[in-house]
Amino acid sequence: MNNLEIIKEIAIPSPTKIVLLVIDGLGGLPDPKTGKTELETANTPNLDQLAAKGICGLIDPVAPGITPGSAPGHLALFGYDPVSCIIGRGVLEAVGIDFDLQAGDIATRGNFCTLDEKGLVTDRRAGRVSNEKCIELCQLLDGRSINGIRILVSPVREHRFAAVFRGDGLALEVSDSDPLRVGVPPKSITALNPEASKLASVANEFIAQAKVALAEHYPANMVLLRGFSQHPQIPTMSEIYKLKPAAIASYPMYRGLAKLVGMEVLPTGATIEDEFMTLKQSYADYDYFFVHIKPADNAGEDGDFDRRVKIFEQVDRNLPELIKLKPDVIVVAGDHSTPAMLKGHSWHPVPILLYSKWCRPDRVSEFSEPACASGGLGRFPATQVMPLAMANALKLTKFGA
Amino acid sequence: MNNLEIIKEIAIPSPTKIVLLVIDGLGGLPDPKTGKTELETANTPNLDQLAAKGICGLIDPVAPGITPGSAPGHLALFGYDPVSCIIGRGVLEAVGIDFDLQAGDIATRGNFCTLDEKGLVTDRRAGRVSNEKCIELCQLLDGRSINGIRILVSPVREHRFAAVFRGDGLALEVSDSDPLRVGVPPKSITALNPEASKLASVANEFIAQAKVALAEHYPANMVLLRGFSQHPQIPTMSEIYKLKPAAIASYPMYRGLAKLVGMEVLPTGATIEDEFMTLKQSYADYDYFFVHIKPADNAGEDGDFDRRVKIFEQVDRNLPELIKLKPDVIVVAGDHSTPAMLKGHSWHPVPILLYSKWCRPDRVSEFSEPACASGGLGRFPATQVMPLAMANALKLTKFGA
Repeated sequence: MNNLEIIKEIAIPSPTKIVLLVIDGLGGLPDPKTGKTELETANTPNLDQLAAKGICGLIDPVAPGITPGSAPGHLALFGYDPVSCIIGRGVLEAVGIDFDLQAGDIATRGNFCTLDEKGLVTDRRAGRVSNEKCIELCQLLDGRSINGIRILVSPVREHRFAAVFRGDGLALEVSDSDPLRVGVPPKSITALNPEASKLASVANEFIAQAKVALAEHYPANMVLLRGFSQHPQIPTMSEIYKLKPAAIASYPMYRGLAKLVGMEVLPTGATIEDEFMTLKQSYADYDYFFVHIKPADNAGEDGDFDRRVKIFEQVDRNLPELIKLKPDVIVVAGDHSTPAMLKGHSWHPVPILLYSKWCRPDRVSEFSEPACASGGLGRFPATQVMPLAMANALKLTKFGA
Repeated sequence: MNNLEIIKEIAIPSPTKIVLLVIDGLGGLPDPKTGKTELETANTPNLDQLAAKGICGLIDPVAPGITPGSAPGHLALFGYDPVSCIIGRGVLEAVGIDFDLQAGDIATRGNFCTLDEKGLVTDRRAGRVSNEKCIELCQLLDGRSINGIRILVSPVREHRFAAVFRGDGLALEVSDSDPLRVGVPPKSITALNPEASKLASVANEFIAQAKVALAEHYPANMVLLRGFSQHPQIPTMSEIYKLKPAAIASYPMYRGLAKLVGMEVLPTGATIEDEFMTLKQSYADYDYFFVHIKPADNAGEDGDFDRRVKIFEQVDRNLPELIKLKPDVIVVAGDHSTPAMLKGHSWHPVPILLYSKWCRPDRVSEFSEPACASGGLGRFPATQVMPLAMANALKLTKFGA
């Protein structure tokens, strides 16, 4: 019996409410000049007060040393084992744009890209074409049928699109065409087992047709496909936790992830203020809220230490709006670290604070990496955040006689 | 997918270098007179400074409460699950003396011992005969053939030798002849399943022949065999981590362990100064170094608190030689605790410090058991040391989309 099976057996519905506030890429690294991380540098009186009333710790999204992508980072926070529960890039793109994936559909992530006259990739993102251009190009490619398979092409954003292969006789074990670097031609898609040969040949023919259709659309004169994948068969959060969960997120991928685990994805504006307003307006209707705050991750990827500091301060200024709702359990955490010093996701464990009437406070009175390192929650896998939140919401009964 | 399989997928070669300094039996217990452990008592300014710049924690080699042998303690530090990856005593002895084990060989640890006139064991180590005597006695026994099986006998040190059974039809599930106590006769070796009956009969015949051959060599007038085992099928560190690893260790068993996981075992002198000199001389040629420092464990086994303190201080005095090389990642840890108060290995978690440019320092500024207990690494399984070191050396790519 794994952890989720235990939780499923002991979870009970109750009127208590849980709010999980995910600050994307929350964890950081010290600025060598000051010795302080972004979160230590930021002036966050409300978070610090919540840390003082609550209990803190550090979470490992996947395992110590492992740098998680956004999908495993979030799945772990929702309680799913991020190693056994792999969600392909194609499915993430498709679900993130509300594409209605059907049983058997195989989704893939597509990029419009630039080929030179020798057929070598010179820009994997075709100069980041506009959203409007992306929509126009997708219409050129959408709805083709090859060997009985329909290919549905939907725009995502800029150079990105989702392509879904629908029809009989498909298996998804094929290689990518995206070489993931420039100066080489796109790769031919190959079947990794005999069952997948039909998908490989259909996908190669689709790419050949796309090249012809896009010939006059330089710099977007070719497509690259990667991450062929199918909708994972995982139990929903309602099935496991007996919750009525809602997601407040503005970025497509996180909306997609939330939908995959069965959350209701609420319409919302994109700013922190908008998202907290959405929380307030829908607060009566659900008992679990995943609120996703994206910009701290972007600032980390850009290596912008000061912008991260400001974003944390902005979250902090808005926090009273959340606290005023008096959720029974508030969890503030991240899906991974994105230190400005590293300009990317990192393996460092992520600060977490949990507040509830029943949390058994520790002696931490500051929400920061070093303070959380000595917190009462210790260092633990992110998959245990949901059981902890459920317990603090008195939504779990006793295990065993 | 287990941890090593993930690491294997995301590991990338890079020019960065990792040095793992293993102080054997590092962890201790307080002297009741002072309330301080050996490591707390020792004056170790260099280790303390490294702890202040780095991040500290406590590791469990196998699991809380489990006292590890040297093999599981080290395997865990190299990233191998010490529970599923069992290396038999016989294989350890054979590999430790550079014996070239072949596929199907079954190795066993041998002791020369003393029998009295009634056939009872009076000394399991035959008064620790000299190395020269060991070589002489092994020559008497080496190279015999019994029922088509060749028995190769090689001296290790003092009363210890390795015996390797080579030939067809062998299976290793047999009991030991070593009774592990005195006042009783050696045990007869029995097959634990039908397939192992040939090995049992050959081994019993070998022991009978040895008794005759050694009759005039009192006190070494008999042999005891234990730990029948075969070379484990485990992936090498190069396969998993894409590293070019080297071991600097003077004791045969640790050299053997390093070889088993695919390290290049470098010739070295036995003192700490010698080993650090070997590190310096070979530093350009590898990207991972396991440096093994033995005497702290011996002092612990002898119950010599003060000698342990002095050894830690000696390591500390030499540490600048290591730091001068500027490894990207320095890990200082132990394979287990060997508190002088217990005169043996113990279950206590082991202090660890990790230094790298990217380590996210904690507030620990002293390398000791209680200081490490509040370190930013928390308490974690020793199998996660390698992923952490790899991450800090920027040798791991992102996991998942």
